[in-house]
Amino acid sequence: MGAMQEKAITIQKLFDLLKSGEDLTKKNPVFIEGWVRTNRSSKSIGFIEVNDGSCFKCIQVVYEDKLANFADATHYLTGACIAVRGEIVMTPEMKQPFEIHASEIILLGDVAEDYPLQKKRMSLEYLREIATMRPRTNTFNALYRVRSTLALAIHEFFQSNGFVYVHTPEITANDAEGAGQTFTVITDAKDPIKDFYGTKSSLTVSGQLHVEPFALAFGKVYTFGPTFRAEKSNTPRHASEFWMIEPEMAFADLQDDMDVMEASIKFSINYILEHCPDEMAFFDKFIAPGTIEKLNAVLAKPFVRMTYTEGIKILQEAVKNGHKFDYSKIEWGMDLQSEHERYLTEEVVKGPMFLTDYPKEIKAFYMKENADGKTVAAADCLVPGEGEIIGGSQREDNYDVLKAKMEKAGNDKGLEWYLNLRKWGGCVHSGFGIGFDRLLMYITGVANIRDTEPYPRTFGNLKY
Amino acid sequence: MGAMQEKAITIQKLFDLLKSGEDLTKKNPVFIEGWVRTNRSSKSIGFIEVNDGSCFKCIQVVYEDKLANFADATHYLTGACIAVRGEIVMTPEMKQPFEIHASEIILLGDVAEDYPLQKKRMSLEYLREIATMRPRTNTFNALYRVRSTLALAIHEFFQSNGFVYVHTPEITANDAEGAGQTFTVITDAKDPIKDFYGTKSSLTVSGQLHVEPFALAFGKVYTFGPTFRAEKSNTPRHASEFWMIEPEMAFADLQDDMDVMEASIKFSINYILEHCPDEMAFFDKFIAPGTIEKLNAVLAKPFVRMTYTEGIKILQEAVKNGHKFDYSKIEWGMDLQSEHERYLTEEVVKGPMFLTDYPKEIKAFYMKENADGKTVAAADCLVPGEGEIIGGSQREDNYDVLKAKMEKAGNDKGLEWYLNLRKWGGCVHSGFGIGFDRLLMYITGVANIRDTEPYPRTFGNLKY
Repeated sequence: MGAMQEKAITIQKLFDLLKSGEDLTKKNPVFIEGWVRTNRSSKSIGFIEVNDGSCFKCIQVVYEDKLANFADATHYLTGACIAVRGEIVMTPEMKQPFEIHASEIILLGDVAEDYPLQKKRMSLEYLREIATMRPRTNTFNALYRVRSTLALAIHEFFQSNGFVYVHTPEITANDAEGAGQTFTVITDAKDPIKDFYGTKSSLTVSGQLHVEPFALAFGKVYTFGPTFRAEKSNTPRHASEFWMIEPEMAFADLQDDMDVMEASIKFSINYILEHCPDEMAFFDKFIAPGTIEKLNAVLAKPFVRMTYTEGIKILQEAVKNGHKFDYSKIEWGMDLQSEHERYLTEEVVKGPMFLTDYPKEIKAFYMKENADGKTVAAADCLVPGEGEIIGGSQREDNYDVLKAKMEKAGNDKGLEWYLNLRKWGGCVHSGFGIGFDRLLMYITGVANIRDTEPYPRTFGNLKY
Repeated sequence: MGAMQEKAITIQKLFDLLKSGEDLTKKNPVFIEGWVRTNRSSKSIGFIEVNDGSCFKCIQVVYEDKLANFADATHYLTGACIAVRGEIVMTPEMKQPFEIHASEIILLGDVAEDYPLQKKRMSLEYLREIATMRPRTNTFNALYRVRSTLALAIHEFFQSNGFVYVHTPEITANDAEGAGQTFTVITDAKDPIKDFYGTKSSLTVSGQLHVEPFALAFGKVYTFGPTFRAEKSNTPRHASEFWMIEPEMAFADLQDDMDVMEASIKFSINYILEHCPDEMAFFDKFIAPGTIEKLNAVLAKPFVRMTYTEGIKILQEAVKNGHKFDYSKIEWGMDLQSEHERYLTEEVVKGPMFLTDYPKEIKAFYMKENADGKTVAAADCLVPGEGEIIGGSQREDNYDVLKAKMEKAGNDKGLEWYLNLRKWGGCVHSGFGIGFDRLLMYITGVANIRDTEPYPRTFGNLKY
């Protein structure tokens, strides 16, 4: 509150002070502002749970009939915005370490009758319809705070390890890796090609190609921004707009690449467990029991590294020994299904793993061809309960090999600048991509990408 | 480099060790990798300036004719990628505190004859044509590293002050604040409306409206992401794609808003001066002399706060006293031109200032109407040498007033969710927007937005 207005203390600040050993009652009287989560009362006393968004925790406000507006206060509904002046009273015997005994409760913003949140538990599907209000629920209060903290963790990890953050463009003249269907950007539907930019313009599906030149100048770089896929998928794991992290490193081969993938995932998990203990306890209890144990298992040991060829042999052996897959015709050269990946990470390795050196035919054109002429230096990171969470590769740094592959793939036109990196002081380099929203799903145990994004965009759905 | 390959030490690491007082020669022999900036030689000795991108500084590699590939090495061109093994030799009497005497120089990646960077100084206009290569020049090496560090500064400032980072959507169903021309997103030009999403979809011009609901749940939030304007402007300050920072605070009036604007700008400037001294010294010397002094002046004192009405009086007085503006008809109600803003901040205040409480007719519909019925609680931050760098306002929190204004502006349809925030536990709240690229221009003194962005997108220009 400004010069004319009283400054409130946040609930987070009160808990910080408590943690640092301060006597909170010395702060009396206190003044807080927030939103009513619940309000129950009898004839002479009432209890309001207030959350101010500064942390996951609420604070209990106790008010009595000596309050001038006691009768009104008993009718303050879930969602109402209030300010409370009062005395902190320590309650060491209770679940909450302290509460506020109100000397004044001021209604800052009432709720109309059509307020869409109820006191009772609401389904995630219902809440998905009210994206502007769900941040006021426990689940989304926790989820979006973890999202914010996870974004900071990503920046801290990469910047403290010498990576330069590059804002690769959202609007692009090329279809990037040909990774999927693209959205077209226009101002005039009558002539979408010769339009604002004078050339076809698409929304990016990946920042990788654009960030590679920066790796060949700064050594280590990363992107972290929105990417888009116009695929008409309707699954819990697909959104048409999502955030990607794409690190790229000069002088790094596939082994280095895997080292950094593993370190970044472990750092992120550690960071969230350390900085969001209340939120993670909530997810572990109410959303996906076992999540914290799952994450601690990821931290516990080095990720196993296994070649695709070795993986195929193990899967063939499993089929021979009677294991049933939906798709049981395991052959070298096939694209593994999720059930196969999960069998390897869950049943064989029993932990996170990298599957490496895939057949070149099933991987992208920019991946480094191995000496065997059949495989490429790619690595997918697989984790139990999920399957793939990161994909990376060493990049093809041989001009002639890459040129031939690009011509074969038909994407050599317009990407000369990308190819030229291989003749203008190129070197061994590698990188990977992490879907940020999927990483958040994995860490919190939240099962639908529509819940991890503030305003999810999916096929046929564009609300707000 | 991976398991099979030797690990290089970065130039940044060497300077860090030096700073911490370590005897660098104890690291001998060292192994570095990077790109040739310059290479000059005589019959028996050569000197290569190497930059590895880990920092702004280069390292001088000295090589002699005892090197097996001495003759070849004398021909390694600007831009070639090399590895060097050798001994660090301290050179306290030289400009650079140490150099490397090479025992081996390995060519990792040669440069073809069409390499577009030259040893001599190149114009910014020329470099704009080769966005993939300009990061290897001094100017852009410095600029993009400052960009990366500034992004981290923004995150650190807001997160350490309890703001939750919210990824507002890029694709939106509404035209946001009606702030400008929008791009349309389609997959099928034949039917751009009933397309992928079943409704008209645009690229966002501002995350503000989408982030306000989150402020009313978390108290303090911020966005930091790409935004788009399809305006056919061709000025050094306009790009069609740029990054915006948009903080929003519940329980905050315009005075609080200005407090946070000022604190965030000062924090950012301090952070860059502290973390990027080499880069800032370069800008101060070669790009915009006086930049560091300008920034220190911003840090030196509180920003002055002046009302629009007061500003108009001062400008009228100035005209009366003979000051010549291009546009000299100063009247209350007018939209100030850049020359007027700069006169106030440069000639009158002689420092950063806020101009507040503008006529409601010239400001956006969502700004809080003041008690006078004529002005709104808006504040623009003006700085010498630039004019406006931030715009903010307290938001209209009265349902009826906002509804009437939205109906008048014709944007009430589709924004019911925004209006509803005012009847579902609303409160006093405020926010502001910083154009990240323009902030970078201001801090570095770089005069064209096309240079601050890795791949600038402007009207008629979409390369890469």
